[in-house]
Amino acid sequence: MAKSRPPFASPITRILESLLDRYRDCREGDVASYIPELAKVDPDTFGICVATLDGHVYEVGDSRRRFTVQSISKPFVYGLSLDDHGVDGMARKVGVEPSGDAFNAISLGEEDGRPLNPMINAGAIATTGQVLAGDPATRLARILEMFRRYAGHPLEIDAAVYQSEARTGHRNRAIGHLLRNYDVLTDDPTPVVDVYFRQCSILVDCHDLALMAATLANQGRNPVTKERAIRAEHVESVLSVMASCGMYDSSGGWIHDVGMPAKSGVGGGVLAVLPGQFGIGIFSPRLDQKGNSVRAVRVCADLSEAWELHQFNPPYCPQTSRRHVHTSAEKHSSRSRHAREAACLRDHGDAIRVFEVQGSLSLATTEPIVREVLSAASDLRSLIVDFQHATAINVSSVALLADLASQLRDMGICVLFTHASRLPEIPRVVADRLGPVAAADILRHQSLDAGLESCENDLISAFLPDQDRRILDVSDYELAAGLSDTERAVLTSLLITRRYGRGESIVREGDEAHALFLIASGVVGAWTGPGGESARRTASFSPGTMVGGMAFIDGGPRSATLVADDDVECAVLQRGDFERLESTHPVVYAKILRNIAISLAAKLRLASAHLDLVTRRR
Amino acid sequence: MAKSRPPFASPITRILESLLDRYRDCREGDVASYIPELAKVDPDTFGICVATLDGHVYEVGDSRRRFTVQSISKPFVYGLSLDDHGVDGMARKVGVEPSGDAFNAISLGEEDGRPLNPMINAGAIATTGQVLAGDPATRLARILEMFRRYAGHPLEIDAAVYQSEARTGHRNRAIGHLLRNYDVLTDDPTPVVDVYFRQCSILVDCHDLALMAATLANQGRNPVTKERAIRAEHVESVLSVMASCGMYDSSGGWIHDVGMPAKSGVGGGVLAVLPGQFGIGIFSPRLDQKGNSVRAVRVCADLSEAWELHQFNPPYCPQTSRRHVHTSAEKHSSRSRHAREAACLRDHGDAIRVFEVQGSLSLATTEPIVREVLSAASDLRSLIVDFQHATAINVSSVALLADLASQLRDMGICVLFTHASRLPEIPRVVADRLGPVAAADILRHQSLDAGLESCENDLISAFLPDQDRRILDVSDYELAAGLSDTERAVLTSLLITRRYGRGESIVREGDEAHALFLIASGVVGAWTGPGGESARRTASFSPGTMVGGMAFIDGGPRSATLVADDDVECAVLQRGDFERLESTHPVVYAKILRNIAISLAAKLRLASAHLDLVTRRR
Repeated sequence: MAKSRPPFASPITRILESLLDRYRDCREGDVASYIPELAKVDPDTFGICVATLDGHVYEVGDSRRRFTVQSISKPFVYGLSLDDHGVDGMARKVGVEPSGDAFNAISLGEEDGRPLNPMINAGAIATTGQVLAGDPATRLARILEMFRRYAGHPLEIDAAVYQSEARTGHRNRAIGHLLRNYDVLTDDPTPVVDVYFRQCSILVDCHDLALMAATLANQGRNPVTKERAIRAEHVESVLSVMASCGMYDSSGGWIHDVGMPAKSGVGGGVLAVLPGQFGIGIFSPRLDQKGNSVRAVRVCADLSEAWELHQFNPPYCPQTSRRHVHTSAEKHSSRSRHAREAACLRDHGDAIRVFEVQGSLSLATTEPIVREVLSAASDLRSLIVDFQHATAINVSSVALLADLASQLRDMGICVLFTHASRLPEIPRVVADRLGPVAAADILRHQSLDAGLESCENDLISAFLPDQDRRILDVSDYELAAGLSDTERAVLTSLLITRRYGRGESIVREGDEAHALFLIASGVVGAWTGPGGESARRTASFSPGTMVGGMAFIDGGPRSATLVADDDVECAVLQRGDFERLESTHPVVYAKILRNIAISLAAKLRLASAHLDLVTRRR
Repeated sequence: MAKSRPPFASPITRILESLLDRYRDCREGDVASYIPELAKVDPDTFGICVATLDGHVYEVGDSRRRFTVQSISKPFVYGLSLDDHGVDGMARKVGVEPSGDAFNAISLGEEDGRPLNPMINAGAIATTGQVLAGDPATRLARILEMFRRYAGHPLEIDAAVYQSEARTGHRNRAIGHLLRNYDVLTDDPTPVVDVYFRQCSILVDCHDLALMAATLANQGRNPVTKERAIRAEHVESVLSVMASCGMYDSSGGWIHDVGMPAKSGVGGGVLAVLPGQFGIGIFSPRLDQKGNSVRAVRVCADLSEAWELHQFNPPYCPQTSRRHVHTSAEKHSSRSRHAREAACLRDHGDAIRVFEVQGSLSLATTEPIVREVLSAASDLRSLIVDFQHATAINVSSVALLADLASQLRDMGICVLFTHASRLPEIPRVVADRLGPVAAADILRHQSLDAGLESCENDLISAFLPDQDRRILDVSDYELAAGLSDTERAVLTSLLITRRYGRGESIVREGDEAHALFLIASGVVGAWTGPGGESARRTASFSPGTMVGGMAFIDGGPRSATLVADDDVECAVLQRGDFERLESTHPVVYAKILRNIAISLAAKLRLASAHLDLVTRRR
């Protein structure tokens, strides 16, 4: 259901109200009178609704006053027949060219009798006849069921209007017979025309129209109920015929002035679709000479101009999907490393490049990224494309990135796509194009940090083959810097060796801190957040580094759970033993304290630099 | 100029080459022969170009083979006449409705003789006659100058084709006289038709077409030269008539199948525009029965499908401009505060809310943000909208946010737009709608951090009116925590009072660290980066806090320049004095060291939490 109203009037509502005010006194045009029942409507009725793609509906005026859908039914029934027969199947029955003639002209192709498009009556009757059904009642039921999905609730037929249409609709019956004559309709046309009369007599209000439009804007899925009303691949066909033929024979002027696919009906309704943005429904029954609601046309033109909705209005600047690029020399992973390894990354980390992408990736926004990667490719060992901040990606964009990955892998460059499982298109298309083995390799790291850490490990292995060697001497720990031999002996006497198996917890987030850990061998990972799926590895630590210093020093809770990545050996300094040093060996105590403070300062410098990079970027 | 080619073939180029391969053997259709000169073209020529909006051109095949522009000139000359007369002025001369007839049909309005649209010959000749000029030579010169701006270099006329057209163009001369008859042309039609023949004989290649298309895709500005070729507000009119009438009488099928504004010419060229994305130029001279290049139509259809370019194809998911929302309780400014003030922010900071927006803001992506703000408005004291990560914003989006700001200000809520000067529309539209005084108030802080700090100060003032009081007792400094009276006396004896005037530097980034500063009164700001405009305030410090501890402890360079925000008094601990304590008062030394380490740990916890927030967000 639509969300509850905010406690304050939205500026959007105010804009819609100002449009009601602007055109309330406009009494140009006349209500439809070609069937007597339509002429009974209150001509001053006026409602406007705008539905968003998350199902919020802004509505002003007579937005819940019902009227008959009339020609607005045409694109929807066309969509249903596309779902039944496909684009090519329907193309054999109805064209997609504007006729240049009025809606009730009998514009049939000279040779095949094919109506020029599904928005003129001839095309719409032909379309209704294509809806698959064994009998007229089933056909009507399928049409009503389709409208229910678009509107989000069952719609009724106005019996009086239907009967009025049925009594007077001789021209449409003639069209039916002509279509039968050309074998566009292959059975008795009379029941088809009858269903057509009924579909035109379906009752809707502006709220319905806005949601029906929003469903088309939303790839065919109702934004409130999430029900699918039409296959996604047929939406662009429906919108295209609305764009070229939706507003009777002022469709060219409409697309020029308003610039969005729309459909009007002689009942006084207009429905307009902003693909990916909004659905709009307007009701005001006075019509211009072409059969379009006078006020609705003006409201749409004003909205299009005020809200910059014209579909052919190029954006002020091209969208960019390139969020940030950095090398591992500029910002490395969260692995704390021994000074020797850190220096290696500073020297050679330029060969690892990270492209963070953002937003909705289309081919146009992906292309510049591919170009930039290729221009740097000769200097690369590893490329990471991180999708953490991507909100959507087109299949064509994944294909382009997959082709890029394939090309780079052929050159011996490691390619990783991280946070890629967020968008299901990525694993699917990468596997389709490169096969499951290459896809598994490219997608093997979920997080950017893990991917970067792995690329760094490879780089360090190439330059420092002994990187993961065991710490054999206490003097090699950063905690022991500056200690004399005798002072170091005091420290050594306090250190207890502990071993942890792969996956074993060393400390838990939130625990009181009783110890400081000096890593002798293996790698320790720091995890934050609740356990299971939502836990996140925020840092890791190589041999020689100390871990747990923050809580050890400030007495606060552990900031992370520490887990052995593999078999880990630590030298452990207990807090009680350390505190006792304050009185027994104050000089050793102060030196260790200073080394801890220096380690914290180093981590703080790093964190500040990362934060600076993150917040300064762009 | 276009950038240099990357060292490796782009996947984009490969796709274009595969299209050349796919259709090279397609020899359907015939070259135009209605004038003898056109029939001389090599029918197998085939070139494809795609130009990006940063001026990169992908080109394959005969992309530099020249041919005459023919009807592709029509939308461009229409654009020139729109610049001369405006949309309403041109509407009196030429309509915008598809004719449903062939390009050379004499489709004139029955009453006023107004051609139905500027893409048929009658409309194009009428359009050429509207280009303001005192004589035909000037008119032609203006048209050539316009094409120079679109293509980025001067274009020539093919004299032989022109003469061939001029010799045989009786039908167009007839159209000219009919237009004169109806007073659509008001002077002798002969020279107008002659200019029309010349404009059709301008020589272009695919590279030109792609850049001309990209110029339209880029709001009328050539993406390579950055020259404006047409006023931005007329681009949507040109694209609209291309969309509804650009492909002769298969325009409806084109917009249905391909879904982008395009124009073809009987010379064999097709130009297609993806607003905000690409320009496409294709040349292959064999034409179908409607007069469109057979191969070009197929290439465009394939590209549209493969690259998901159909303009009415709704995006997979709506774009979002909402990057991140947080309260000041979750993430406060970089001001280091005394424990008392920090607690106040924890307790009451929810009343300050920060909305960070990103990407290109349209009305559809701004609306949900406005809705979210309004739903929270009753709990707010301050709202900050930060534009640091916005790449573009529509005027309508600024207007919506300005209206929101006005509404919140009326409710007594402080509203700040930070990093707003990055997008010139923001200050302009806010000032237009709310007046200069309110605009200056809303835009008074450039950075989010400064804005947040100011909102926090207001909040703290409301709850702790004495916030900026002077530190009177050494025990109130965080550095003195845990010291006994006698130990504190040792520290006090080392502290030197220093005063700094507003704007005075205390230490400089990169300097060696000789001292630690305890702030007694006033506020100290930390600035990083080169001086002047690009310096950035990364942190600030309130009375009671210590500043300079990192370099003081690790002997590294100062990480920032410290500047007095206002009159500042500090108690200064010299490094030499502190080091001497190690031997003279080891217990005091260790306690102070520990307090420094605790302060570093607190800052590290904060920085890690911010980093976590920044990298985890989505």
